[in-house]
Order: sequence, then C-alpha cells, then structure tokens
Amino acid sequence: MLNDAGADLAAMLPDGVLRPIEPRHLEEPRGRYVGQAGLLAAPRDTEEAAAVIRACAAARVGVVPLGGGTGLVAGQVMQSGPAPLLLSLERMTAIRDLWAQENVMVAESGATLQAVRDAAETAGRLFPLSIASQGTAQIGGVLAANAGGVNALRYGTARALCLGIEAVLPDGTVMHDLKRLRKDNTGYDLRDLLIGAEGTLGLITAASLRMVPPPAARGVALMVVEDPAAALRLLGLAGEAVGDAVSAFELISGQGLLFQQEMLPHLRQPFATPPDWMVLIEIGLPGGVDPDATLEALFIRGAEAGLVTDGVIAQSGLQAEAFWQMREEIPEANRRIGAISSHDIALPLSEIPRFIADAGQMIAAMGDMRINCFGHLGDGNLHYNVFPAPGRERADYDDLREKIQHDVHQMVVARGGSFSAEHGVGRLKTADLARWADPARLAAMRAIKAALDPAGIMNPGAVLA
Amino acid sequence: MLNDAGADLAAMLPDGVLRPIEPRHLEEPRGRYVGQAGLLAAPRDTEEAAAVIRACAAARVGVVPLGGGTGLVAGQVMQSGPAPLLLSLERMTAIRDLWAQENVMVAESGATLQAVRDAAETAGRLFPLSIASQGTAQIGGVLAANAGGVNALRYGTARALCLGIEAVLPDGTVMHDLKRLRKDNTGYDLRDLLIGAEGTLGLITAASLRMVPPPAARGVALMVVEDPAAALRLLGLAGEAVGDAVSAFELISGQGLLFQQEMLPHLRQPFATPPDWMVLIEIGLPGGVDPDATLEALFIRGAEAGLVTDGVIAQSGLQAEAFWQMREEIPEANRRIGAISSHDIALPLSEIPRFIADAGQMIAAMGDMRINCFGHLGDGNLHYNVFPAPGRERADYDDLREKIQHDVHQMVVARGGSFSAEHGVGRLKTADLARWADPARLAAMRAIKAALDPAGIMNPGAVLA
Repeated sequence: MLNDAGADLAAMLPDGVLRPIEPRHLEEPRGRYVGQAGLLAAPRDTEEAAAVIRACAAARVGVVPLGGGTGLVAGQVMQSGPAPLLLSLERMTAIRDLWAQENVMVAESGATLQAVRDAAETAGRLFPLSIASQGTAQIGGVLAANAGGVNALRYGTARALCLGIEAVLPDGTVMHDLKRLRKDNTGYDLRDLLIGAEGTLGLITAASLRMVPPPAARGVALMVVEDPAAALRLLGLAGEAVGDAVSAFELISGQGLLFQQEMLPHLRQPFATPPDWMVLIEIGLPGGVDPDATLEALFIRGAEAGLVTDGVIAQSGLQAEAFWQMREEIPEANRRIGAISSHDIALPLSEIPRFIADAGQMIAAMGDMRINCFGHLGDGNLHYNVFPAPGRERADYDDLREKIQHDVHQMVVARGGSFSAEHGVGRLKTADLARWADPARLAAMRAIKAALDPAGIMNPGAVLA
Repeated sequence: MLNDAGADLAAMLPDGVLRPIEPRHLEEPRGRYVGQAGLLAAPRDTEEAAAVIRACAAARVGVVPLGGGTGLVAGQVMQSGPAPLLLSLERMTAIRDLWAQENVMVAESGATLQAVRDAAETAGRLFPLSIASQGTAQIGGVLAANAGGVNALRYGTARALCLGIEAVLPDGTVMHDLKRLRKDNTGYDLRDLLIGAEGTLGLITAASLRMVPPPAARGVALMVVEDPAAALRLLGLAGEAVGDAVSAFELISGQGLLFQQEMLPHLRQPFATPPDWMVLIEIGLPGGVDPDATLEALFIRGAEAGLVTDGVIAQSGLQAEAFWQMREEIPEANRRIGAISSHDIALPLSEIPRFIADAGQMIAAMGDMRINCFGHLGDGNLHYNVFPAPGRERADYDDLREKIQHDVHQMVVARGGSFSAEHGVGRLKTADLARWADPARLAAMRAIKAALDPAGIMNPGAVLA
C-alpha cells in the first residue's frame, strides 16, 4: 500500500517504531470520517518521537498525532490529500513521576486520562478533569484539544491544569519545558500555545500536571428549575453560598430524558415524568461543613425565590453516581436517536436564556424538529443538538443541515459566543474558523503556523485548512 | 529634541495624541535605568492606539508601551538605540462593562489594578489579583507582565484571570477577542501568548477579566515555624484541612523583620525578637465555617507534628491588615538597606528547603553578606535577596554582583526552577533568558516574534534582545 514516498520514509525511521495499522487507528466516534494513513509509527520514547518527526520533515510527509481517538471534530483522522504518517502515542504511557506534596505529576501523553486520575487518587490527590471518554482518551490528546468537561467550572480546562510540557516541534527539535512551577515568567507562553493547537504546532509527548487536594466532603443534587434563566439565578445563589466550591453545574433538558426513556430504558430516572429543565449540582467542601445541609439550604433559598420547584439530594454515593450516570448517558441516547446537527457552543452566561428561546424559535420556523439542549451551564457551554421529529429520519433533513449549522453558529457568534467551546476545530470546523474568527486573530494564527511549521507537516488540514 | 524621523512620525499621528514627556514617564522603581523617548503618545481609544502603531510601523520607529511604570525588570524603559515612541495607556482607563452575575468585567488597559479591584468590590465580587503596587500598576501592564502576587496560590496569576483581550498587533490591526467565555476552543491561544509577552508581540488595549464570589469568611494567622521544610509540611496540612481555600501562604524570614526594625521602626511587629522563620497564612472559606477555629485546629495539628512553635491568629480585620502590612513593607525595608543582588525565583516546592540551605552556604563562601529570603511559598516563588554585612555598603560588593546573580540562577535552573517567577524578563534579564532557556523553546519564541513583528517595532530590546 505504500507509495514511494512512504517506502523512503519507512527506511528513515527508528527500528521497531512501525506498527500495523488497525481499524481502530482510523475511526472516529461519530463514524462520519474514515481515515487513511500510509504508515503508523508508535515511538517508545521522546527521542524516537523526535526522530519520526525529523524523518517526516525531511520527507515532507504529514504527521497526524493519534491519542485515544475520542475527539469529536476529526482532528485525529485524515480525510484527503497525500497519505500521512499516523503517530500513535500508545507506547508512551508512563506516569514518569509524582510529587504528592507538590500536587504535581509528570505523565506521558499516551497515559489515559483515567490512568492519570487513578495515579492522583492513589497519592491522595485529585486530577480534576473529567470527561465521559476518560477511559480511552489520552492525556496528550486531552491537552492538544484543551478538553473541558464537567469540572471546568471549578478547576478550569486542561490548560489550567498543566504546568509544563515536553514537545517535539515541527522541525523535530524537543522542547524541554516540564516545569513543576506555579509561576514562571520567562518569555512567551509556548505551553498554552501548543495546548489547544490540536497537534498542528507540535507533538506534546509529556506534561507536568497540577493536582489538587480532594474536597473533604461532596454533595450532589438534582433540582428542577422553571427555565434556564432560573437555573442561572440558582447558580448565582450557589456561588454566594459556597463561593468557588461549586464543582459542577449541569443543565439537563426534559428532551434528553425522554430520549433516554426511548433508547436506554434500563436507566433509572429520578422523575417519572421528566420536567422541562433540571440542574445537576455538585459541591465539594472543606471539612467541617455538611454538604447535604448546604444543598438543602440552597434548595430552600431557590424555592423561596421561585426558582426551584422540586429536587432530590443524593443520599448516598451510589445515588450520586446514578445522577451522574444519567447526565453522562445523554450523549449516548442522542447518538441512538441520531442528530441532524450538533453544536458545541459557549455563550456569555447572561445571553443564554434569550439564546435558547430565540434559537428554538428559529429552528421551529425551519421545520418540525426536536432540540436537546444540555451541558455545562456554569461554564456557559451548551451542547445544542437538533433531532428529527418523532417518526422521521435524520436523512429527511439533509437539505437543512448546513443552514441549521450556519444559522446557529451565526446567532452564537453575534452574541459574543463560541462555535466550538470544548471540542476544538479539528477538520470538522475549519470553515467555521475561517468564517467566524476575528480576522486579525486568524492572520496571527496563520503567521504562527507558518513560522513554526513552514513545511506544514504537523496535522495537515486540521484547525487551519 | 526630535530627530527627523521623530518629526516625520509626529505628522502621521492622530490629532491630540501627543503629550509632553514628564520625568515619571522615564523612571523605573529601582532607579537603575533612565529611559529616553522621542515622543509620548497617549491615545484616547483603541482606534487611536492602532493608528499610532500603524504610523510607527510605517516609520520603523519602536514602540514602548507604558502602564503604571511599576515593573521591576525595566520592560517599560528604553536604555539605548534609536529613540522610541512611548505609548502611554494613561487616557484609556474605563471599566467598559461589568456583569456581576457572570463574574466578568471588561476594563481598559490604563485602569489601575486598584480601580479594577474596586469595581469588582462595588459589584459584590472579588478580583483576586493583589500586588503591593496595585494603586499605580495598570491592568494592561499586569497582564503584559503576567503578574502574580500573594493570591496566585488560590486564583492563579494574571493569565488565569483573563478571559479575553483586545489588542493592537504589531502591524496595527486590532484583534477583537474580548470574550466573556470560560470555554472557547477555536484555534490558537493568542490571548495567553500576548499575556506575559511584555508588549513585544502587541499592545493589549482592554481585557475581559474573571471575578470570583468573595469568600464568606476570612482568617489570617502568623505561625512561627522551625524552618522552610516545616513551613512546607504545614502548607500540606493546610491543604488537607481546607483544600483550595488557602488564599495565601507567605514565608517571612527573621532577617526581613530585622531590616524593618532598622529602617521602618514605626511598624508594629508581632514578635519582640523576630523568629528565624514565619508563615503568614490567609484562608477564605464558605459560609458556615469559622475561619479562626479552622486556623486554631491547623495550629494545633502543626504543633503536634513539631512544625509550629508559636503563632498569632488575627482577632480583627485591623490585626489582619497589620500582619499584611508587615509582609508588604518587607520590600521597602529591603530597598532602604540596599540589595547587592535580588532574585525573583521559583522552585519546585520540594526543592525549596535544600535550595535555601545550599544557596546560603554558597553566598557565605563568597563573603560576609546578609540574605533576606521571603515570598510566596505556596507558589514556590521566593524573593531571594542578598545584602551587605552590617556597616558595609552595596558598592563594596560591586565585583561580586555578577557572580552572585549567575550562581544563584544556575543553582535555581539546575533544580528545575525559574530565574524569573513573576517579574518577567524585561530588559534586565534578556541575557538570562538567552543563557538559561531551553534552546528549542527559545528558537520558537524568536520565530514567533519574527512572524508577528517582522520589523521589530514592539518594545524593542525587551524579552528577546
């Protein structure tokens, strides 16, 4: 299957670095793209990874970095163009070191997010980034995509949890910057530039990660709210009550639970008839405070203010997990229903209620569809997904898909929002980036890409098409 | 005083933008540099700022951005070379907007840090960055330098508190990226690149800033510890007790208090005979927890573990302020004594005790000197300052200064530390950056500078000399 360039390149690689390509290397979760690749290299250490990239630079062959392959914007697959080399981190999985007293560990990029979380837990610490795919997603990909998840409200996205990186730059040199420092003002922030660059400016091979002391006590509740505006006011009350101890504040719509009843009937649901809107709240408090009493006080304040009409405070860890499972199975039920169009958007918090109302009207005017709007309300990050009417098929709406995407993103951008809050740009949203990004910012991005990767070998076609 | 280039440039600038240069525009706090400037421009808005930079780009005249002028590494003054234009933000001081519910405000770069903090407080919020010079330092400079201060332990440095920026890029285009979003993964992180770039990649004209709900209750204590190792173990105990609610954890040495007794005798000191080592601890807790009881429990645990030998818990806001004043007057007493060499360093936490011991021995071997080592222990950020022996002068050590600087920085870098934790590089540490930075990282920095500012007009001579 190798063309001449591929054969030449293979001869230049370190011994034993090539592996057979398996289907899993070429798939992505939504099944919309099938990748292609000339070669699959799986280096065993940073020096081998650098040698691979140097060889690709010399041969002018593109490099597509591959982590766990859970990304949702096709950053990890190659759709067209000359066959690239897939560079898999699957052999670089070590937790190199961990300093519990410092709340720092150094992990290689191929370690799964779950392995990182487990290492922290073993040391009595918490690595607070949590996403549904954490058993498969690798920390290198989590950083390359600047993943967010359910605890970003409290602890920030991946960027906020990384103190330093080791990376192979597009010319094959290794940037050694695995600092264990909270403060380091020695020049430009290359770390934050590579984080979120989705492999287009270099390959992150290891990272120095920030852990936190786990909160002494945790409380989880589901509260039924009148509407998204009431949910936001409840978030404000929670902030007044416990400050930055609100660990998660998730919006759940009744539509999401109806989808679950239809597609995942084995899931136990907290309400026989799903209410229109709920929030899932988690707080994590220092010792000496009772989280359940705190949540009960919040419920009472919310009810008195006319924001909350019903609620359940988890009475056990098991019940808390059941609430979270319900939240985390929303995307699976969505997948089985089959979305016409999915949007990972962020908005300024105060724009959210009006956006949800206006976007709903806009979609309704286009045709008979169902909307499941849910997500990380505390971050202003909504997953706004549009589905066929009951009894109709995704394909029935093929001619509408592009218009829905465009009009939703336009409405989001006009309100100061983002068309990609946490999933990134990948290959799926390069046209959106070109259309919606500030022109000066886009020009600076292109200049930086050209300066660091003049041959354009790193993840070609991603982010900047 | 204008040369021809200056006269030509003046003719290209917007009407009314030039102001007379005053001595305050050319000074810096340590009095070591006297600046020079051809022109001083003080634009009234972002468009005027962009017009000034476009004119400078056309005339190939350097631009030195000027905020409050409180920086400690001469980033704001020009030592040599062709006379640049000083671009002062003194007329762009507005708090443009504030959304209390969102915990966001947008401030222009010329607003002082104090004005930003006051605006937050008026809205019932906290802007948690705090530095001694906040009455003069401007938020644009705070961001350009990625300032840290005493609460970075809990809330991060300036970078962590900024959601978006508006900036004039070196070609005079305006990057509009004043997002009020917690999550936005749409391409490269230009915001974090400009933050900390000290004006060399563009001029930040306004910023979208993150506020937090103020902790419901605050507790402040001074605890006497055996040594820095004991201080670190106490920090660990504090983390176990209250998690991320430790707002500040400052190391204070007896030497610092002796300097205060000598130079600032009016200051009330908490101990008649200064102990060798103390920590100043501040915690900020949610409602329902008594901070004094929490600090007392920490004191008891610390005493039982043999870490803490004495302590005072502030019994009033006034006493808490007195403790903080003592901490914040340490640099003033230092200034009056007159340091031979000052170092703003960071180290991995677990390296700190050995570093303090080893560096002390190294300095002692060089001659008779006094050391005042203090600072943000929770961040691993120490101000490590070396002073003449009693009765001797700073000038007596002129031949040692360079060796002390070099050897301290070498020892810091060898232990994975930073030679500039929070003050930045400016013009004072360009040689350090060239010597100590990772070569691949330095090369990438130079490539980015050349790509975004090919004519080299933005803050020439700073960061990358």
